[in-house]
Amino acid sequence: MKKLINEVEKVVEESLQGLAKAHPDLVKLHPSVRAVLRVDSPKEKVAVISGGGSGHEPMHTGFVGFGMLDAACPGEIFTSPTPDQMYEAAKAVNGGKGVLYIVKNYSGDIMNFQMAADMLAGEGIPVEQVIINDDVAVEDSLYTAGRRGVGGTVLAEKIVGAKAEEGASLEEVKKLCERVNANVRSMGMALTSCTVPAAGKPTFELGPDEMEIGIGIHGEPGRQRMKVKTAREIVEMLATTVVEDLPFKAGDEVLAFVNGMGGTPLSELYIVYNDLSDFLEKKGIKIVRNLVGNYITSLEMQGCSITLLRLDEEMKRLWDAPVCTPGLRWGM
Amino acid sequence: MKKLINEVEKVVEESLQGLAKAHPDLVKLHPSVRAVLRVDSPKEKVAVISGGGSGHEPMHTGFVGFGMLDAACPGEIFTSPTPDQMYEAAKAVNGGKGVLYIVKNYSGDIMNFQMAADMLAGEGIPVEQVIINDDVAVEDSLYTAGRRGVGGTVLAEKIVGAKAEEGASLEEVKKLCERVNANVRSMGMALTSCTVPAAGKPTFELGPDEMEIGIGIHGEPGRQRMKVKTAREIVEMLATTVVEDLPFKAGDEVLAFVNGMGGTPLSELYIVYNDLSDFLEKKGIKIVRNLVGNYITSLEMQGCSITLLRLDEEMKRLWDAPVCTPGLRWGM
Repeated sequence: MKKLINEVEKVVEESLQGLAKAHPDLVKLHPSVRAVLRVDSPKEKVAVISGGGSGHEPMHTGFVGFGMLDAACPGEIFTSPTPDQMYEAAKAVNGGKGVLYIVKNYSGDIMNFQMAADMLAGEGIPVEQVIINDDVAVEDSLYTAGRRGVGGTVLAEKIVGAKAEEGASLEEVKKLCERVNANVRSMGMALTSCTVPAAGKPTFELGPDEMEIGIGIHGEPGRQRMKVKTAREIVEMLATTVVEDLPFKAGDEVLAFVNGMGGTPLSELYIVYNDLSDFLEKKGIKIVRNLVGNYITSLEMQGCSITLLRLDEEMKRLWDAPVCTPGLRWGM
Repeated sequence: MKKLINEVEKVVEESLQGLAKAHPDLVKLHPSVRAVLRVDSPKEKVAVISGGGSGHEPMHTGFVGFGMLDAACPGEIFTSPTPDQMYEAAKAVNGGKGVLYIVKNYSGDIMNFQMAADMLAGEGIPVEQVIINDDVAVEDSLYTAGRRGVGGTVLAEKIVGAKAEEGASLEEVKKLCERVNANVRSMGMALTSCTVPAAGKPTFELGPDEMEIGIGIHGEPGRQRMKVKTAREIVEMLATTVVEDLPFKAGDEVLAFVNGMGGTPLSELYIVYNDLSDFLEKKGIKIVRNLVGNYITSLEMQGCSITLLRLDEEMKRLWDAPVCTPGLRWGM
């Protein structure tokens, strides 16, 4: 295993320290639990909080800041954070208008966010949860009952974060998050595996001419292992499944998100975007916003995922709204 | 070779098409030569242009836009662009105040930018060139007489682009670029090689427990091949060489740039930043600005480089100035 790390046990801790040192104007670390907090919290707004296993950076810790998350709770790599992290993070950033937990659909995350929500509710703090389950690849998988939460989470955090920033109520923010989840679909693929530092060896093995379609962001099995195909064929497979699922229809306005798994060059992601753009144009689906880059990753895995979100006018406005986080920034 | 591509011969072309489709508000493709142009050029300002082999994305094509480059000329992967690309790009974006070519020190780039500059000068178009040679790893190498141009190029393009945006003269912009180059030093390392699509096999071989210190951005040999060390030890090796070269001294205010080679997780780059921050603090060198991420890459190579730029007040102001490009964006 070759990685830019010191001790295996300190990978997450030292990475968070680096994040906080690089962006002291945006984020700070919670003094007692592992959580990244917005530096100017608590504010008089709904506190939007997410979290999950580490190894998917910049998600979620890199999305803390103006117009997105108020706090992120990172677990060990590919391991759920604990309820006390989620509870303490919420206590630290709650500005009095309540807390929304955005939870990716993994069993550990669901259970622990539920416990934290129960603790908050027990103290009379208004709390809601929205579960993101946008991955059309498989029903049920290694860590999940139902569909997994993947790229749609990034879009939900941006759009919902902007709504909270405007001063919307907890009910409004929750409803919007549910609407984003209802209109977003994703599917991913991998050319290579990744190596969790504590494991020291690749999570799975892929032959030198093989790829896995429908891969999960922890390397959990997808739909099918097959010989490597061209970018255009891969896009066709992923995008067809995504489009048919919602389904997206001619005339729909979408945000097209081409996400890198961490180890794929940006130049290849733009080739994928080029092919996706052609694919959607033939179907009459209009890309009116896009995002191309490494936003929800699986360590150094090579591969990509495609996410489509059907936009309405409010989502468009909120997507365009200013955001200032270590991982996503525009308008300020 | 497993990559998200279609035909090997069309990798650069299709990637540029994707870039242009994703960012039509920022960039457009030149109609006849391979060049990425700012969508609102020509403007009444000095045109700042760079270029070089592809495979280092987002540099340079991702840095075209407000406050940075007016045009970028991408060659084939790891291959210099041609003089006609540089000449036509300059003709397309020259707003009448002249052209600055920012050139990384590689023999092919130097020769071709010189030819393009001669062609422009022959037409009476004011043109200057600044050669970036910030890599302290080696004197002379596979493609270079003298030191190579690496991470400092990204910082020069941002700072010089901001100066040009303010309406500065060609002479002022050139002098600033020379000042940036005089105050910036870099060094990189690799944990893995990368595979040029047209070659189909890794550029070099590294053993499963080996790394290369002082690597070039095309995989050219560095200073030393050795057993993998911890991030802290790697930072100490790279940063000591960088600091002693200028030299950077106690009390200096610097921009610290931790760059990923393309295949390294962001979380590891933050570990490197954490160690670099500690290292510089012990030396009394103050980080007052920073940049952490994949900005000058070598396809899917795993590894990082460290760049330090000694800042003065003007450079700080220009670094903070708004920038809006596909690859770097803030303040707007």
